[in-house]
Amino acid sequence: MTAQPVVADPVGTGLLRDPGRFAREVLEPIRKVVGERGLITDRGAMQPHMVAWRDNWAGRVPAVVLPADTAQMAAVMTICAATRTPVVPQGGNTGLTGGGQPHADDSEIVLSTARMNRIRGMDLDNDTITVDAGVVLQVIQEAAAEAGRLFPLSLGAEGSCQIGGNLSTNAGGLQAIRYGTARGLVLGLEVVLPDGRVWDGLRGLRKDNAGYDLKQLFIGAEGTLGIITGATLRLLPRPEATVTAFLATPSPRHAVAWLRRAKAALGETITTMELMERRCLEIAAKHSPRVQDPLAQAYPWYLLAELSGQGTEEDLAARLLRVLEEGLEAAELLDGTVAASAEQAAALWRIREGTPEGQRLEGASFKHDVSVPVSQVDRFIAEADAALTRRFPGIRSFAFGHLGDGNIHYNPVQAEGEPAAEWAARLPEVNRIVHDIVASLGGSITAEHGIGRLRLEEVGRYKAPVEIEMMARLKQCFDPMNLMNPGKMLPPAALHRMP
Amino acid sequence: MTAQPVVADPVGTGLLRDPGRFAREVLEPIRKVVGERGLITDRGAMQPHMVAWRDNWAGRVPAVVLPADTAQMAAVMTICAATRTPVVPQGGNTGLTGGGQPHADDSEIVLSTARMNRIRGMDLDNDTITVDAGVVLQVIQEAAAEAGRLFPLSLGAEGSCQIGGNLSTNAGGLQAIRYGTARGLVLGLEVVLPDGRVWDGLRGLRKDNAGYDLKQLFIGAEGTLGIITGATLRLLPRPEATVTAFLATPSPRHAVAWLRRAKAALGETITTMELMERRCLEIAAKHSPRVQDPLAQAYPWYLLAELSGQGTEEDLAARLLRVLEEGLEAAELLDGTVAASAEQAAALWRIREGTPEGQRLEGASFKHDVSVPVSQVDRFIAEADAALTRRFPGIRSFAFGHLGDGNIHYNPVQAEGEPAAEWAARLPEVNRIVHDIVASLGGSITAEHGIGRLRLEEVGRYKAPVEIEMMARLKQCFDPMNLMNPGKMLPPAALHRMP
Repeated sequence: MTAQPVVADPVGTGLLRDPGRFAREVLEPIRKVVGERGLITDRGAMQPHMVAWRDNWAGRVPAVVLPADTAQMAAVMTICAATRTPVVPQGGNTGLTGGGQPHADDSEIVLSTARMNRIRGMDLDNDTITVDAGVVLQVIQEAAAEAGRLFPLSLGAEGSCQIGGNLSTNAGGLQAIRYGTARGLVLGLEVVLPDGRVWDGLRGLRKDNAGYDLKQLFIGAEGTLGIITGATLRLLPRPEATVTAFLATPSPRHAVAWLRRAKAALGETITTMELMERRCLEIAAKHSPRVQDPLAQAYPWYLLAELSGQGTEEDLAARLLRVLEEGLEAAELLDGTVAASAEQAAALWRIREGTPEGQRLEGASFKHDVSVPVSQVDRFIAEADAALTRRFPGIRSFAFGHLGDGNIHYNPVQAEGEPAAEWAARLPEVNRIVHDIVASLGGSITAEHGIGRLRLEEVGRYKAPVEIEMMARLKQCFDPMNLMNPGKMLPPAALHRMP
Repeated sequence: MTAQPVVADPVGTGLLRDPGRFAREVLEPIRKVVGERGLITDRGAMQPHMVAWRDNWAGRVPAVVLPADTAQMAAVMTICAATRTPVVPQGGNTGLTGGGQPHADDSEIVLSTARMNRIRGMDLDNDTITVDAGVVLQVIQEAAAEAGRLFPLSLGAEGSCQIGGNLSTNAGGLQAIRYGTARGLVLGLEVVLPDGRVWDGLRGLRKDNAGYDLKQLFIGAEGTLGIITGATLRLLPRPEATVTAFLATPSPRHAVAWLRRAKAALGETITTMELMERRCLEIAAKHSPRVQDPLAQAYPWYLLAELSGQGTEEDLAARLLRVLEEGLEAAELLDGTVAASAEQAAALWRIREGTPEGQRLEGASFKHDVSVPVSQVDRFIAEADAALTRRFPGIRSFAFGHLGDGNIHYNPVQAEGEPAAEWAARLPEVNRIVHDIVASLGGSITAEHGIGRLRLEEVGRYKAPVEIEMMARLKQCFDPMNLMNPGKMLPPAALHRMP
């Protein structure tokens, strides 16, 4: 068994190393397809597409292409395939792992969906909406709301992320405990394939077993198998009532016990169940005067819970209060407050929303977006805290996240007074400690942010060789020239590992 | 572009044409793995695995193998791969399209999961259950119920179908309007691959974006890419209250209008929403004295609706009654009754359950398991009825099914007095008329039953060449020797169509 690459390494195989031929054989044909508005070659104008908002990936490409519709995207991809020009599909550029960021060596061009922003239609009896990939998530949420429906995908970047990116990364977010991740909200997809052909899978069907469910391949594939250009999405009943509460609990273990009780009593009305430790609230309050502790005394852990459903808020709040009282009696909860108005609910949400920003201002934190079975959340946090403190005394960890999904954002920050450079050098060791614990508990080292470039090397450590090989097979099957977002998602070794 | 087969045709390439070598090189090594209890070669004893319960597929194979666990299944598959012996994975043998049925030419062996029937474990804080592929669906439902949880997959064959088959066919059933199809209930899979290796993807995670979501490949693949041997499944809160109602409505269009109203008012409490025409009730009552019309007069169409949720039945019934009254006022509904006891609810369910059996006793019906957008259900039934009546005067159609999913079982029966042989000859034309209408409305010709052998030729007519090619690529990628359930799922032409 020789270690031959099974997917071509495209760098240098195209025309990108020859600027004159590249301009003639790639850029000019693309310009004819997309027009002047659809092609950016000025370095300054390309800059927003080159830099990610948080993680400091900085790319460098000779061109950013912005097709206006699916036909243009297909024509551009046909040119790229013929000239073996690697492409980086990009949506709202709000990702956290560099999946939508080009490399910095002029070896790729960016294909942006930003101009593909039409809502193609809604079918209210079918509870579906069909959109271009470049429609901003919040625009879809608003269109659904205007029609008396709910599109439940909800996350911090919703004002600027695009649905194509949300689907390509299988976005999770704040309401997954009830509505699942982005994958479950998709009924149909339209995809431009690596050879430039269009697969029209824009069906609005809730049951369709006529063949392999091909759309699943492209959801969460980070643009490595094709470019999503359109989607038909499920809409849900719009809840009539919402109740928000902020609860104190002794530990994540107690929080899980109360969540179990709450699920039995409240069913699917539980829409959000966010866990955070005291330090998250403190740091959010320290950096924003609008964040305040709503409870009279300090507690070690908190839950931000939101229920929603049909009926009245009084009914929903009464049902919640009964389960809160049971939780207090069982000592699963220590205290709590239920928002009596939309303003109060917004104030509670600001605690959760202020947590990432507070951490950013507090110092350099190492981000981990992990998941474990819900039953293992307590053990994960305890073991990670203990292992890191043993190794790096004074280290401060910030654990918060989506308890109902077992998805914890676990972000250690340097000890107070530790020099930044020393801390920065510790990243690989910190990652190794945290992710080894995650793996030992049957978890995932990237729950909702994806692999992108950030976890590319690490993911190979935590996956069985047979799984890496299956991933490589899929990539080979659909993109044998490795033109689609090369250097993302698949560990480099994977492409050389197949028999 | 030459039409070369991209996936091998296995028939005759293995040892099956040489009984002596087959016994020596395939059967004896398999016997060593599975023991006497795990190998059937007696024609009579194999018979239950050869005949499907409804559709009269009759297979003939030299052996049925029943591994006791995943390791045995993997060892058997390794032998089959080495000897190029094609296999037919089989669960409870309750499928309706022949997907689990072998061909009748001794060209394959059957690999049954019937002895793999352990519940491996439950994690109640994580709301998951992990099971062998051969566990009967009802056993999982009961284990969940004993633990105070719900496993919501529910279908007619639940007392004998196995979960591995349910997942391999992405089963739908009666509660998909609320809980989706089988696909959405899977968190992790264990699969024996065509080369005999095991992929252990038995994760219990609600968010995991570390790589392609490989389990999606095997769900709904009808055993053509690998054999599912275990699964980790989601459990849900067990509803405290259930309310069942039987409603009369003027037409499917009115039923859809009322469903829209009901979803807005009742949200996810709507658990079942079955549509049927009067003729279904009549035929069920004609053939079973236990089926009775619960309403005082006859109406053209009916809905069987079930709500469930947390809280009391009084509350749930009161909410339903309000929406019923609105529906009556708006003339979307004509009449209705709400079950006042479990006995009454069971009586209402018998109408729905008696419909398929009544049809079977009434004459030879042509089954269609189609889906269209919910908004197109009315149009589909009207157009199909009209087209068939034009072509075959006196034909009687039976339309019933899962309105909330747009999934209609549309089963024309011969005109009274028409000779059976004449009617049987009309099947291809009837299929063509019905399925062309489905396709024109953006629907699927096999909503929940799968392709199997029944729709193998037809499916090629309704899929774009690029989609057929993508399916063939996947098959080639994972099963290049075409050993896994050959002659199912992929139209024969597909395997010759790739560039």
